[in-house]
Amino acid sequence: MRITIIGSGNVATHMAAALKNAGHNIVQVYSRDMQNAALLAYHVKAEPVDDLQHITPDTDLFIIAVKDDAIGIIAEQLAKHDKLIVHTSGATDLYVLLAFTDKAGVLYPLQTFSKVKEVNFRQVPLCIEGADAAITKQIEELAQSISNNVYRVDSAQRKILHLAAVFACNFPNYLYEVARQLLDAKGLDFELLRPLILETAQKVLERLPAQVQTGPAVRNDTGTMNDHLKLLAETPHLQDIYTMLSQGIIKMDFTPHGDK
Amino acid sequence: MRITIIGSGNVATHMAAALKNAGHNIVQVYSRDMQNAALLAYHVKAEPVDDLQHITPDTDLFIIAVKDDAIGIIAEQLAKHDKLIVHTSGATDLYVLLAFTDKAGVLYPLQTFSKVKEVNFRQVPLCIEGADAAITKQIEELAQSISNNVYRVDSAQRKILHLAAVFACNFPNYLYEVARQLLDAKGLDFELLRPLILETAQKVLERLPAQVQTGPAVRNDTGTMNDHLKLLAETPHLQDIYTMLSQGIIKMDFTPHGDK
Repeated sequence: MRITIIGSGNVATHMAAALKNAGHNIVQVYSRDMQNAALLAYHVKAEPVDDLQHITPDTDLFIIAVKDDAIGIIAEQLAKHDKLIVHTSGATDLYVLLAFTDKAGVLYPLQTFSKVKEVNFRQVPLCIEGADAAITKQIEELAQSISNNVYRVDSAQRKILHLAAVFACNFPNYLYEVARQLLDAKGLDFELLRPLILETAQKVLERLPAQVQTGPAVRNDTGTMNDHLKLLAETPHLQDIYTMLSQGIIKMDFTPHGDK
Repeated sequence: MRITIIGSGNVATHMAAALKNAGHNIVQVYSRDMQNAALLAYHVKAEPVDDLQHITPDTDLFIIAVKDDAIGIIAEQLAKHDKLIVHTSGATDLYVLLAFTDKAGVLYPLQTFSKVKEVNFRQVPLCIEGADAAITKQIEELAQSISNNVYRVDSAQRKILHLAAVFACNFPNYLYEVARQLLDAKGLDFELLRPLILETAQKVLERLPAQVQTGPAVRNDTGTMNDHLKLLAETPHLQDIYTMLSQGIIKMDFTPHGDK
């Protein structure tokens, strides 16, 4: 397939590489910043462009992987080429594209990407949606050429997935940082916590989180929780987080397996 | 070393197995529940006992791996044997043992254990403390016989570690469960999130969490955050958690590397 990549961020970079590796032809890479366009274009043997006027219509698919609030503006300018346009956003309705073209779809990778770390794209869940059955099928086949985990997900479901990803990824990472800062203040190395962080994630790969919940809250160990709140006396914001998350654990319908 | 295990929970089970594998002699396993004592004792070729009166003094070390509030009560009854006594609790001061004996120490494994999942004990960080230099050295050598990651940590530091572990393990696991429930309500499988959860943990094995923070809060993307809060309209408790953690991310001194 001939594919044009709009964007040069983390999603654009990883997806363009995966598509190129799968044998697709990356025609152009667009970025407002020519250096960024050139860097990604070089890797996937495409032409870099920094002006939407220079986008060629000789392509089969536009993949828009830019900030959410720019998706509509770009789609509006690409619609004249009358080619399939997909976006890669978890939080954006298909409607944002349908306002400008009926050849529209979504290719949302449910993974966290950073430019400095390789990801095995074949294991990335790809959530796809198309404006009609034929487009859905076309996007599905494209998605299956780069990933083993392709799911048909409508816009309402995708928004929930995006929200759930915030709870499962962004918030845990923030809590890792809170833990790091607590250690740092006492001269302790974050290295001490890394095995625990990895094990906590690995545990839910085969079990459900409620089955492996541990800690003072699930035991309703008020003595330990009060001790912890005292240790956080100088950071009332962390006290609030501690209390709120502990209450969530206490109230939840957990089936605890293990007490430590 | 001749070792007596007091307790039969997750920590007792994993630690007894690691010690046995390292060539130590597990003399007895105590539990109030004879079935639990017998099960663990069988695995480590020890004698099971369910009465502290039947504990033999022919041992070099008592490892107390029971609920925090029972540590002092048990230490009081073991002190008469005049042998080294250690506890395995992150939240408990060494003082709780020193009240009854000066041959006291701590052997705190900073990991989450469940009976159903194997753990490579050599990678478990062991935080040790002794009542004096000789005891500290003795516990350190024992710890090094079962783990490559042994750290000398005093009681004040250990309490911070235990608190940090709640933020790095217990709270993220709870947020995984919240995410699972959000998906479940829309007929979506938790399987969709597992690659993301694993990648999020793996990312901080070589980098610091602040360097890899992603999501709407670190971008201060108020449109997406407001959309998310609307999706949580029926669960005000989750709205509060969402707001509080997002504010924490927004206020924090992050150096964001990547915008997705």
